[in-house]
Amino acid sequence: MHLVTGGAGFIGSHLVDALVSAGLKVRVFDNFSSGREEFLEHHKGTGMVDIHRGDLLDIGAISSAMKGVEMVHHLAANPDIRLGTEVTDTDLKQGTLATYNVLEAMRKEGVPAISFASSSAIYGEADQMPTPETYGPVMPISLYGASKLGSEALITAWAGTFGANAWIHRFANIVGPRGTHGVIFDFIHKLKADPSRLEVLGNGMQEKSYMSAEDCVGAMMHLIGYCELNVSLYNLGTGDTCSVRRIAEIVVEESGLEGVSIEYTGGDRGWAGDVPKTSLEVGRLLGTGFEPNMASEEAIRHTARALISEIGL
Amino acid sequence: MHLVTGGAGFIGSHLVDALVSAGLKVRVFDNFSSGREEFLEHHKGTGMVDIHRGDLLDIGAISSAMKGVEMVHHLAANPDIRLGTEVTDTDLKQGTLATYNVLEAMRKEGVPAISFASSSAIYGEADQMPTPETYGPVMPISLYGASKLGSEALITAWAGTFGANAWIHRFANIVGPRGTHGVIFDFIHKLKADPSRLEVLGNGMQEKSYMSAEDCVGAMMHLIGYCELNVSLYNLGTGDTCSVRRIAEIVVEESGLEGVSIEYTGGDRGWAGDVPKTSLEVGRLLGTGFEPNMASEEAIRHTARALISEIGL
Repeated sequence: MHLVTGGAGFIGSHLVDALVSAGLKVRVFDNFSSGREEFLEHHKGTGMVDIHRGDLLDIGAISSAMKGVEMVHHLAANPDIRLGTEVTDTDLKQGTLATYNVLEAMRKEGVPAISFASSSAIYGEADQMPTPETYGPVMPISLYGASKLGSEALITAWAGTFGANAWIHRFANIVGPRGTHGVIFDFIHKLKADPSRLEVLGNGMQEKSYMSAEDCVGAMMHLIGYCELNVSLYNLGTGDTCSVRRIAEIVVEESGLEGVSIEYTGGDRGWAGDVPKTSLEVGRLLGTGFEPNMASEEAIRHTARALISEIGL
Repeated sequence: MHLVTGGAGFIGSHLVDALVSAGLKVRVFDNFSSGREEFLEHHKGTGMVDIHRGDLLDIGAISSAMKGVEMVHHLAANPDIRLGTEVTDTDLKQGTLATYNVLEAMRKEGVPAISFASSSAIYGEADQMPTPETYGPVMPISLYGASKLGSEALITAWAGTFGANAWIHRFANIVGPRGTHGVIFDFIHKLKADPSRLEVLGNGMQEKSYMSAEDCVGAMMHLIGYCELNVSLYNLGTGDTCSVRRIAEIVVEESGLEGVSIEYTGGDRGWAGDVPKTSLEVGRLLGTGFEPNMASEEAIRHTARALISEIGL
């Protein structure tokens, strides 16, 4: 039995699909704060997925969900990076403290392996691009990034002290169907509210690495099968980048709307804590034989199409 | 006014001495779990040091201690690294959560600067020695190291999101008078209990960088005056190492005891989560013009003498 925390969420539900496709039984643990039952609807009645509704801050709930589990995929987190500028304990609780509870529950129940969704946000404003796994010192500038680095540290400490095996995946910006947040999601909602204009936070020059959720969970599954180390740590991305300006253009193209005025609020970043430019070095991932199906721009177009259909315009 | 959390503790009380010597007024915030009033006794009646007894987990207490503070020196932490193998939430609470409360209190009270006592424990078992600040990925193997890395991440996130200035000091093993824990302290207590033999955890080949507490606080003061960056991050150490075997010999020599049998429990480390070999690259620190007064072995002998006199044999 594989346990997926946040398994009803955006990336989590794609991972559940991938695990089930590999013939594995899956238990989902989710508080449904951003996860949705419809993301897992297609598994109903198959006997492959059972759902535990609970919160990771409830150590009793997560402990009882650990029974019989051979591996935890810990994806639950606050998905809204920008929220950290307003409510400062969200990432601490939903990130760092939730990870602590997962690890404690694993230790007590004897679960030997964890695969963790970390983030390129841990690198902060790196002065080396593309940024490799060996980059240091890592100095996240968002509270979300801090919670991911704090969680990585707890996981390596548990591995070092109590002997669990760990896979740490430092995600690029992951986009795809079932997205519940992020720039493409926001743009579509803005166009839905006002089809004549699209407001873009910052000057549109922000440029980041994107990866499709399908490729992301494919890479996670590949690395779990590939690595035998006590702790395996990889950047997950596509090796290229796409600007926010280009994303805005693609979303407008895919919307089919005519005469949309794209307007920039100005400034080099969307909000305090936003990293204007990220580019992940993914040579180590590609060196394992993994090949993503979509580059950044393709992943964005694929996502724009899927979300426009999900959200409706 | 400078606030020192953990100011009644081992390194904290040395920092209070250094700040007062520089003519600065100091407020100490300490829960006296390992801090001691006698470490600050010599400041009584001078009007330079006032003491707030409180716990960092009490956000109200730390907030009220922030009034009128221009800089926080955050040194409070659980000093017993080994404890993490038994009680897994000590470092999370006394480390990561305490740091969060300090930062939140600073943000609310408008305190613009923090100097933080981090640790070489964040590097875990680095495969590059001596280990520079740019080493990555950092993978602590102790829960103490995880709490220090988690705290660093919170600090850089606060600096990036809310604009505080930060100094992060990654300490070697700091030793000196008023030590309340650590290998020299343990050895003296063991000799006090049984002057005929000294049990050493592990095979004695563990080898680490040591620095005297006096040099450590000197380096902190020097860097605060030297750096103007939003976040300054330096390794603090002496550039050399000393083995546990040599420490045992020095403590026995300084004890004046005759015929002590030094016995090793065996194995390459003292306990799970202990890093057998650490060596900090301190070229960046030395490049700022700072020169430590004592190398590792001198610092150890100095400490052995001071602690034998404090503890009594």
